[in-house]
Amino acid sequence: MTEHHFSEHRLSGHRLSEHHRTPVTVIGLGSMGSALAEAFIEAGHPTTVWNRTPSKAAPLVSRGAEHAPTVEEAVAASPLVIACLTTYEDTIEALAPAAVSLKGRALVTLNSGSPAGARGMAAWSLGHGARFLDGAVKNVPSAVGGEDTLLYYGGDSGVFDEFASTLRVLGGDTVYLGADADLAALYEMAVGGTLLPALVGFFQGAAAIQARGLEVASMVRFSVKWFEMINSVLPVFAEEIDRGDYGKPASSVNLFLAGAAHDEELAKEANLDMAWHKPFHDLLRRAVESGHGDHSISALTEVLKSPRLPA
Amino acid sequence: MTEHHFSEHRLSGHRLSEHHRTPVTVIGLGSMGSALAEAFIEAGHPTTVWNRTPSKAAPLVSRGAEHAPTVEEAVAASPLVIACLTTYEDTIEALAPAAVSLKGRALVTLNSGSPAGARGMAAWSLGHGARFLDGAVKNVPSAVGGEDTLLYYGGDSGVFDEFASTLRVLGGDTVYLGADADLAALYEMAVGGTLLPALVGFFQGAAAIQARGLEVASMVRFSVKWFEMINSVLPVFAEEIDRGDYGKPASSVNLFLAGAAHDEELAKEANLDMAWHKPFHDLLRRAVESGHGDHSISALTEVLKSPRLPA
Ligand SMILES: NC(=O)c1ccc[n+]([C@@H]2O[C@H](COP(=O)([O-])OP(=O)(O)OC[C@H]3O[C@@H](n4cnc5c(N)ncnc54)[C@H](OP(=O)(O)O)[C@@H]3O)[C@@H](O)[C@H]2O)c1
Ligand SMILES: NC(=O)c1ccc[n+]([C@@H]2O[C@H](COP(=O)([O-])OP(=O)(O)OC[C@H]3O[C@@H](n4cnc5c(N)ncnc54)[C@H](OP(=O)(O)O)[C@@H]3O)[C@@H](O)[C@H]2O)c1
Repeated sequence: MTEHHFSEHRLSGHRLSEHHRTPVTVIGLGSMGSALAEAFIEAGHPTTVWNRTPSKAAPLVSRGAEHAPTVEEAVAASPLVIACLTTYEDTIEALAPAAVSLKGRALVTLNSGSPAGARGMAAWSLGHGARFLDGAVKNVPSAVGGEDTLLYYGGDSGVFDEFASTLRVLGGDTVYLGADADLAALYEMAVGGTLLPALVGFFQGAAAIQARGLEVASMVRFSVKWFEMINSVLPVFAEEIDRGDYGKPASSVNLFLAGAAHDEELAKEANLDMAWHKPFHDLLRRAVESGHGDHSISALTEVLKSPRLPA
Repeated sequence: MTEHHFSEHRLSGHRLSEHHRTPVTVIGLGSMGSALAEAFIEAGHPTTVWNRTPSKAAPLVSRGAEHAPTVEEAVAASPLVIACLTTYEDTIEALAPAAVSLKGRALVTLNSGSPAGARGMAAWSLGHGARFLDGAVKNVPSAVGGEDTLLYYGGDSGVFDEFASTLRVLGGDTVYLGADADLAALYEMAVGGTLLPALVGFFQGAAAIQARGLEVASMVRFSVKWFEMINSVLPVFAEEIDRGDYGKPASSVNLFLAGAAHDEELAKEANLDMAWHKPFHDLLRRAVESGHGDHSISALTEVLKSPRLPA
């Protein structure tokens, strides 16, 4: 396995005494922003909150947060400002009135978005003299603060180093990816892209089980075991792709192509919509055409890198 | 969670003394068949083997197996006959000369195939008076015999009950699905359908990470955590689908549709082939058209059940 060198910070038992805790401002109090603010309050950080719709601040105020009447005052209240709005565009729009106060402060964005969006956000922030870090919460709001909850960050390493123990309050598995401000968005996209296809595969199986009058619950433990098997082979595929060497396949492209016939059997068996299989079969065939038939299935990575021109 | 009632047999510490061990015949000595035969030899079962290409029997004979010169003699040697050839068609072709000897014996097939193929195999076997069970090995040959290795079976419950402790030699997690001979093939297909789409999602992310000059190995632990997250939500989705109630979504169809825009960002970012995303986006849009926009993403199951007619 190739080594890589992210800074990883896991929760230590040790907690700073209250008067040392960094004041934090949280901007945006939707499901995720509220969970972030709660975690800071819980951990004893002086916490200032602001939201466009002010009523959402009430539950946090009742637990000890300061409610800033304007976004300017919210930003001015803390050296560390965390924003969790819907998009980067929303974040820039909401922060615009406070742009002058951002100078010299650390701004951390935790919304989802594209790498290009993160770069735009970074340019805007740096333009106003803020020190910028972009992050992603790889979990649901209820998991915020959990020991195993993963957040990763890219951008100003000074911000990460200075506030690492404060950021760790949000999740015990806190990772610094590197100096580029779009790294968290890049990894989010790269990692998250398995979700919809994996779920549709599961839903198709569920429909086939139901078509037979069986309970979908009966397949769950088998599916879980199957995803664990998939997890166990990812390091091997990653190594093949990193080395660009697909010559010692555990499962070949040809083997998957042979399995493609079963997809049509399933359509016949359970009368399901199988339209979504065709592009996968096309990928397999293009891999064979490119000489990857006897190579590892991970060689599909090379095919994905060469988009076909639109006809 | 809905309860279900498969018989599950896990390895017990207790082993039968050698002279009680059931004689077993293994037909087909490819990667998987050889692993099956080895496990039986290892566990002290008198093991007879046969393969079309006889040379593949040699390593097993050197470990103590009997090599039957003909398939008839192989079948006649044991009350329990296990076949692991490439397909059901191959199995019928190979067993045809031994059809008369199958009468009264237990035949267990462990190849992959479709439910229809399994039903055909069952009809052929019953036609020759065999007691028939079809199973699937949900793992690689090297895992055969492992305590956690999953095999499931459908068909003659008498065969399963009589030979359960012998079948358990192949994997500690041995499950009887029910009396229908095609159940193992059905579950195999239902469960296995996530593999290619999940892997292509991963390979796409790998390509995006590489396009940035980063190592794919650096994303593996995040992807593993992501699949664990997916595993944690499958029971919830199964329950929604079983109840047909999609009204309390943890993640809605609309949320996924909003995320679809990010897929195009990724194409721009890393210049990847995104053709395989389109049918997924079509599914999401059809779900919205059917009134599932604010429903759980698991409502896609209903859309998959209504194939569009070819244009
Ligand atoms: N929820 C999750 O499970 C989850 C998990 C990981 C990541 N995320 C990401 O976290 C971010 C926030 O998600 P959420 O679940 O908290 O969303 P949400 O509940 O819909 O909240 C959105 C927040 O953004 C604010 N907002 C949106 N546009 C604005 C604008 N133009 N000006 C000022 N405020 C604006 C909203 O203010 P109002 O209250 O005034 O509308 C609200 O505070 C998203 O990027 C999401 O993808 C969420
Ligand atoms: N390998 C795995 O990881 C794995 C995992 C789960 C399930 N399975 C399933 O297990 C089955 C066997 O897989 P495998 O990996 O062992 O395949 P394999 O190594 O290719 O072996 C195929 C076996 O089938 C025999 N065979 C094929 N056609 C035949 C015919 N017409 N007459 C007589 N014998 C014939 C071959 O005999 P010859 O030696 O004479 O060619 C050989 O013994 C497949 O259905 C596969 O999908 C495999």
